Amino acid sequence: MKSSQVVLQSRPVGLPKVEDFTVREAELPEPGPGEVLVENLCMSVDPYMRGRMIDRKSYTPPFQIGEALTGGAIGRVVQSNDPELPEGEHVESHFGWRDAFVARAAGLRRLGELKAPASAYLGVLGMPGMTAYVGLLDVGALAEGDTVFVSGAAGAVGSAVGQIAKIKGCTAIGSAGSAEKVRHLVDDLGFDHAFDYHDGHLERQIRDGAPDGLDVYFDNVGGDHLQAALNCMKPNGRIPLCGAIAQYNATEPVPGPNNLTIAIGMQLTLQGFIVSNFNHLRDDFMRDMTDWVTSGRLKYRETTFDGLDKAPEAFIGLFTGANTGKMVVQIS
Amino acid sequence: MKSSQVVLQSRPVGLPKVEDFTVREAELPEPGPGEVLVENLCMSVDPYMRGRMIDRKSYTPPFQIGEALTGGAIGRVVQSNDPELPEGEHVESHFGWRDAFVARAAGLRRLGELKAPASAYLGVLGMPGMTAYVGLLDVGALAEGDTVFVSGAAGAVGSAVGQIAKIKGCTAIGSAGSAEKVRHLVDDLGFDHAFDYHDGHLERQIRDGAPDGLDVYFDNVGGDHLQAALNCMKPNGRIPLCGAIAQYNATEPVPGPNNLTIAIGMQLTLQGFIVSNFNHLRDDFMRDMTDWVTSGRLKYRETTFDGLDKAPEAFIGLFTGANTGKMVVQIS
Repeated sequence: MKSSQVVLQSRPVGLPKVEDFTVREAELPEPGPGEVLVENLCMSVDPYMRGRMIDRKSYTPPFQIGEALTGGAIGRVVQSNDPELPEGEHVESHFGWRDAFVARAAGLRRLGELKAPASAYLGVLGMPGMTAYVGLLDVGALAEGDTVFVSGAAGAVGSAVGQIAKIKGCTAIGSAGSAEKVRHLVDDLGFDHAFDYHDGHLERQIRDGAPDGLDVYFDNVGGDHLQAALNCMKPNGRIPLCGAIAQYNATEPVPGPNNLTIAIGMQLTLQGFIVSNFNHLRDDFMRDMTDWVTSGRLKYRETTFDGLDKAPEAFIGLFTGANTGKMVVQIS
Repeated sequence: MKSSQVVLQSRPVGLPKVEDFTVREAELPEPGPGEVLVENLCMSVDPYMRGRMIDRKSYTPPFQIGEALTGGAIGRVVQSNDPELPEGEHVESHFGWRDAFVARAAGLRRLGELKAPASAYLGVLGMPGMTAYVGLLDVGALAEGDTVFVSGAAGAVGSAVGQIAKIKGCTAIGSAGSAEKVRHLVDDLGFDHAFDYHDGHLERQIRDGAPDGLDVYFDNVGGDHLQAALNCMKPNGRIPLCGAIAQYNATEPVPGPNNLTIAIGMQLTLQGFIVSNFNHLRDDFMRDMTDWVTSGRLKYRETTFDGLDKAPEAFIGLFTGANTGKMVVQIS
């Protein structure tokens, strides 16, 4: 049994290029006792992966040149040496960027009966959905009636943030990178206000939707978005720091917001978080989100690239605005 | 009865000048029912007052041109129309920048029997001491064994922060603006490590005292200190944002830390706070701090200017490093 794997060929400088990646074949071992062979159905590309391509100390070690990348994937067990995880079961794993793998069954998350297409478990019912859920409700300490602004609102995380805010009786404002995405946020997802950040005047555009200011700014972008949002916060506002996609490909240090001192007088809390530290909320998340998705209260969209060899292109597309909703690579 | 008052003559641009202030005489009314006449013994100048000299919306309204400034003061009742607050009582008020005032007794804080010189109630037993106490213990969620870095460590707030950290079984590191202040922090106040920020290499100097990183950075300075500290934080570190004295006199926006995205992966919390919102902790503060001060476990120093007319000079000195410990203006 062979596996195709996407390998990091070189460390990207600035925006990654397809030449920074290559696909190679690897021989898979026979599954040993307690192990299973899994064929991946689909895999995730996420902005955070850009950080792991840099050779630096962080919360996860960097990807290594010449090694297969990893990331979220949904697969099906095709051969099992563990009675607890029989053939045909769907599993979530971190063995993305490849079409098949052999691993210990105990290290994989069983999905049970799927309540949505497999790819939804990479997005709204997976890591990005849970990021939105814990970031808004726990880190952001959302309260009914709050006014919430989320940047990168048409992405996998942002589109869930805005819709959860609406479900919780709040006002949702979002920024995105095209007129079509803005239309999607308001017309399809029920955001109260949305704008294209390319139009500039971020602060004025936020205030158009939040004349009384923001209780929560869910930051996926950093940079100018964070600076504009700081100027719009109400006292005791919360700013979950989730991502800074505007800076991920920067080759020089990017100046931070020049108005951070506002946080003192306004008593703001800026809190960075990573979803993997919120596993104590996973059951709540799966229950609520599955309910919202299956009942149609929370909608999701995917942008799909077909074939493992298209994974680098899909990944790069995250930084050029190619996706609305979750970026998914279909593998088989 | 006349009162001398310091009036804001013009809004300072950059570092304030003595010409931005003037002293004028005002006629005081006879105290009415429930009112008292108070003679001030001493008054406070604090860095936060610089912000109130700017005409902008903030958590307190700006000082107005041509009006007497206000701020913390300790005075003695010399005439009383309220049996609850008899002559001879010491009170803390917000009627600083003047030598006497008439006010409703109910709006003044009675100090009871003084356990320390009156001026201590402007500093270590007053607002700066309480800022250190709530900022470190509540906002900073200090835990035994933590490593704490405080900037502006020789100031009224910073010197209390480091000593409270030591009392709580933590490691204390401080930055200050002269070799003499550094010596004072280590030799007199028991800091584990201190350095002169003029020597540069802030990050290396922090790491000299905290090779394993920081649990808490108590930020009085902002700017380059915040940027350097961000690079040294441990996962789940806390950064109480108390002040940004490096920026108070800036005439152009100052770029923020270019490494704020570290807060995401390291799951840092940056929290701005103002002490007036922590009155629920006042009794705890007064009990603990009075105990620490009277038992000699927590030391404090004052830099004193004599005479109300020297108040502008004392205030300006806050930004030029003229003070070690609390800057106090003796009035009578």
